[in-house]
Amino acid sequence: MKFKRIVGVFLFVLFSTALAQTDAEKLAGLEYSLNTISLLFFAVLVVFMQPGFALLEAGLHSGKNVINIFMKNILDFAIAGIAFWAIGFSIMYAAPLFINGYSAASFPGTADFFFQMVFAATAATIVSGAIGGRMKFSAYLIFSVIITGFIYPYLGSWKWGGGWLEQMGFQDFAGSAIVHAVGGFAALGAVLAIGPRIGRYSGKKVNAMPGHNMALAGIGVFLLWIGWFGFNGGSQLAFASKDDALAIGNIFVNTNLAASAGAITALLASWVLFKKPDFSMTINGILAGLVAITAGCDVIIGPWAILTGAIGGIIVVFSVPLLDRLKIDDPVGAIPVHGIVGLWGTIAVGVFGGANLGVQILGAFAYAIPALLSGYIVFSILKMTIGLRVSPEEELLGLDLAEHGTEGYLMDDPLRDPIILNPKAV
Amino acid sequence: MKFKRIVGVFLFVLFSTALAQTDAEKLAGLEYSLNTISLLFFAVLVVFMQPGFALLEAGLHSGKNVINIFMKNILDFAIAGIAFWAIGFSIMYAAPLFINGYSAASFPGTADFFFQMVFAATAATIVSGAIGGRMKFSAYLIFSVIITGFIYPYLGSWKWGGGWLEQMGFQDFAGSAIVHAVGGFAALGAVLAIGPRIGRYSGKKVNAMPGHNMALAGIGVFLLWIGWFGFNGGSQLAFASKDDALAIGNIFVNTNLAASAGAITALLASWVLFKKPDFSMTINGILAGLVAITAGCDVIIGPWAILTGAIGGIIVVFSVPLLDRLKIDDPVGAIPVHGIVGLWGTIAVGVFGGANLGVQILGAFAYAIPALLSGYIVFSILKMTIGLRVSPEEELLGLDLAEHGTEGYLMDDPLRDPIILNPKAV
Amino acid sequence: MKFKRIVGVFLFVLFSTALAQTDAEKLAGLEYSLNTISLLFFAVLVVFMQPGFALLEAGLHSGKNVINIFMKNILDFAIAGIAFWAIGFSIMYAAPLFINGYSAASFPGTADFFFQMVFAATAATIVSGAIGGRMKFSAYLIFSVIITGFIYPYLGSWKWGGGWLEQMGFQDFAGSAIVHAVGGFAALGAVLAIGPRIGRYSGKKVNAMPGHNMALAGIGVFLLWIGWFGFNGGSQLAFASKDDALAIGNIFVNTNLAASAGAITALLASWVLFKKPDFSMTINGILAGLVAITAGCDVIIGPWAILTGAIGGIIVVFSVPLLDRLKIDDPVGAIPVHGIVGLWGTIAVGVFGGANLGVQILGAFAYAIPALLSGYIVFSILKMTIGLRVSPEEELLGLDLAEHGTEGYLMDDPLRDPIILNPKAV
Repeated sequence: MKFKRIVGVFLFVLFSTALAQTDAEKLAGLEYSLNTISLLFFAVLVVFMQPGFALLEAGLHSGKNVINIFMKNILDFAIAGIAFWAIGFSIMYAAPLFINGYSAASFPGTADFFFQMVFAATAATIVSGAIGGRMKFSAYLIFSVIITGFIYPYLGSWKWGGGWLEQMGFQDFAGSAIVHAVGGFAALGAVLAIGPRIGRYSGKKVNAMPGHNMALAGIGVFLLWIGWFGFNGGSQLAFASKDDALAIGNIFVNTNLAASAGAITALLASWVLFKKPDFSMTINGILAGLVAITAGCDVIIGPWAILTGAIGGIIVVFSVPLLDRLKIDDPVGAIPVHGIVGLWGTIAVGVFGGANLGVQILGAFAYAIPALLSGYIVFSILKMTIGLRVSPEEELLGLDLAEHGTEGYLMDDPLRDPIILNPKAV
Repeated sequence: MKFKRIVGVFLFVLFSTALAQTDAEKLAGLEYSLNTISLLFFAVLVVFMQPGFALLEAGLHSGKNVINIFMKNILDFAIAGIAFWAIGFSIMYAAPLFINGYSAASFPGTADFFFQMVFAATAATIVSGAIGGRMKFSAYLIFSVIITGFIYPYLGSWKWGGGWLEQMGFQDFAGSAIVHAVGGFAALGAVLAIGPRIGRYSGKKVNAMPGHNMALAGIGVFLLWIGWFGFNGGSQLAFASKDDALAIGNIFVNTNLAASAGAITALLASWVLFKKPDFSMTINGILAGLVAITAGCDVIIGPWAILTGAIGGIIVVFSVPLLDRLKIDDPVGAIPVHGIVGLWGTIAVGVFGGANLGVQILGAFAYAIPALLSGYIVFSILKMTIGLRVSPEEELLGLDLAEHGTEGYLMDDPLRDPIILNPKAV
Repeated sequence: MKFKRIVGVFLFVLFSTALAQTDAEKLAGLEYSLNTISLLFFAVLVVFMQPGFALLEAGLHSGKNVINIFMKNILDFAIAGIAFWAIGFSIMYAAPLFINGYSAASFPGTADFFFQMVFAATAATIVSGAIGGRMKFSAYLIFSVIITGFIYPYLGSWKWGGGWLEQMGFQDFAGSAIVHAVGGFAALGAVLAIGPRIGRYSGKKVNAMPGHNMALAGIGVFLLWIGWFGFNGGSQLAFASKDDALAIGNIFVNTNLAASAGAITALLASWVLFKKPDFSMTINGILAGLVAITAGCDVIIGPWAILTGAIGGIIVVFSVPLLDRLKIDDPVGAIPVHGIVGLWGTIAVGVFGGANLGVQILGAFAYAIPALLSGYIVFSILKMTIGLRVSPEEELLGLDLAEHGTEGYLMDDPLRDPIILNPKAV
């Protein structure tokens, strides 16, 4: 009797434990899967930033360089895809090489790699627009390998790889410093090495060299805005709990508030300063709002997110003419938007987000200065070796014909010539 | 002996309850997280409708207004991001202001806000195309604040905020009436207030003023089609159960069937009426199919979804020339597509979806008439105060130069001038 | 006493079983939901391939055919949406017709249908670019119904419907053969039936007929690259477990490695062969890398994924001029990219992925040959009946004016004429 009861209880315990275990395994599998799928979808959103940058840059440059800009940005992404896989990811996270099949705690190493790789590509792409219209394609490709394979991963390891800035409590949630200031200051180094476009400055006068297609720039900025939800949202890197869900909801709203505020302040500031609501300032104001909130979108609350983005928008309107006064020719505004506002965003986490202000300032410059130097040094070495700049004739002709042998646009079809269409009319 | 056994059973119950509780908590966390992540991804899809509308409108307008259209649509989204956050969301859902950290039952208030905010922006953006080419930028911005902060939220509260139309059993799943009829009839009010573009009508004759770039319009309509899966799918507002999954599967298929049917009927109707398969009618047919199914995509089954969209496509082909006969100049077809077909879609839930037909008709006009009046009144007040319309000279010159001081396109680079390229040739 | 204890244990068992059951049900619901939501989001990514193809093709064609290309690709998607729903899905998977409400084991039949429908649309769209610039719009629409409703579903059933190739162990994970080789070889059949564009070949000379807008082509290829993550990732068709998550992580990385490698090898090969880093070769190299890895992205590991894509990129650079030597005029490179590289990708699973090489070769040609024949036969029948080709005058004028009655671009607004702007100046 007693024995039977003991056996009965024992069997029941065994059975219910087994059931619980199956469920617990399923539950763990679901968590793992939700983390992975979410991270991959956020990563795909970040990939939209690649056409976003290409369109923005192509639109703000002359139509004679549109192929060249697409080529650089396509190759940036292709090169990051190989170089960050072969070496960069390993440098940045001390991860095993060739990460197929490797499993991290809460999602596969492959998913982690894919997300981080798109960030590396972003850092490279920021440089592309600033030096547009005058750099040799071959020189740019070499730089793209170096920044995605070495510069960005090494600098990134200081924080996201658990290095000295992480140890000091430096905060940079999605990379105002690590991605944007690095990209923006590497761009400044590059521009200092290559100099301005022909005709940009005559003495103290700045000659307007307007972009050729504002529709392209307009689509580009929308794609960047959209991609940023992946950039900031995905940086939570954990998704399968209520706390994570709450965090990501905040990140989305803060990101959007800052972008909106940057658009509005840049619009108003340009309206006051230049007497017209300026298009390129407004779209750069959006990007400034987004760059500014990137470091603190997890901790800065709504009203301060608005202020963070609003200040970003104003910084851009004032820094663009300032750079021109210094004869630093950045046709798309990459240095103000990603570099200067990247600094501001990093520091803002100390002002509005509770981080240590001194550490934030230190961290911001700890990224900006090495990025500036490495950009300047790499491009100076390229200048001394394979040459950095196309000939003046090639620059005036446009890089599409000079470098790639084709025009970007061909608006009139030669076969449509009236004589061909109606030979009797002649 | 007895005591030990009691203690043993007690400990076992405690232990297994604790285990079950942990699992139940994890399970609840996963549900919450899946709901949140899904809602946010659907919301991001809806954000694609913003560049979608901008491209569609830019393409269907003259090339001299492309910057102006992008500026309006970018600012719509930026203004909705602030105004719907600061006041609109609170009016519409009686929700607390400044929603950071606020948690709803099944997802964070922030995620709910973000999803709904994009809907508010959509309602505003619908107006933008209809009044394109002639409205002062400043007047439009003021309207954008009023519609996203007040008009749309107040009207929306009647149904989605649990107001009197919700009480009456009115059905409008994703907003054929609440978003599209409101946007479309506010656009009609705006067009009545501002009048047609110069040169559009000479006596009874309607002068064709074709859009400048059908490639832009084509990308735009694809982005709108894609965004609509977020618009309708996300409106399920709950995702973490089998029933929800089944519902969303139906919503996707119904949405796509109606869009496809609208494209095909508008194509065929235009082919018969105008002897050519017309591009702008076909793309407006897609949008008509999408607007038509928006109210009933959760309850209308496949074959009737096709019919709902097909009728939408035909309505558009017949209403576009009708509006022109009434000298209502809507360059992009926003009034037929969102307004008239918005009514049809709302009523269709009574015809094909089992809703009370009388209530659906009542609800449809309960949205259309106040939207029309408020659009007309707001723009009339703007007309009497700051002025609504640019000067005829500015209109003919184009809003890009007149309002924003830049051309949208610059196809020839001045530095490429043959004399500069080869000075010895002269 | 004993009785009470028995009742107590009984109640406890009942209670805890009930709890466990609720949890197990919730867990099953979550799994089902995560599978569904993931599949739908992957499907939406694949939908981005539709504007991707439209932009790529529009950009690589003359500007006089831009409306026609958008019309064909929009209608492809609309027709697939109806025809694959009404008949194709049923042929391919022996599924019930009119799939609303139908529930499969791990996600709704509707979600499955939606994902597969976009694949059918892709197969059709591949043909569109190859025959661009010379085919009657009506003839193309009829073909679009036939391929999405019958040809693709019937051929697809051999593998994905559990048919004879599935029985033989043929492997084609996401459709290098089933989608891409079918589309590419149907395109070859179509081109053989319709012949080259006027002016393309004069004797042995190949006249360059460059595309009109490389910015459009550039956006297009980015959208295709992005969409491919849905194409390959979603083909896992199960998402809610750790094993699935690991598989999808691998698929993403392999897909991206192959695309990157294809871009780089096509760039370098074109640089060596044509002395310039060629834009259209590079973007076709990306697509070649993507097509090549589609069949084996689940089993080929990183380094071999790179090699698979790299070979794809090189194949394209060599096959494009080869086709021209055979006077096969494929303006966008659809036959090399999807057809020839589709064969390579299918065979590569035998070389690098452990599949039976003989079966892979058999399967590749089992798709290519019937697709070629059916494309040739259908278009030849159309040629003999309603006519396949527009008149030479219409072809030279452009299909936008000839078929659709409108120009795709109108860069100068007639109202902006200086006389109208300032009548006193005359």
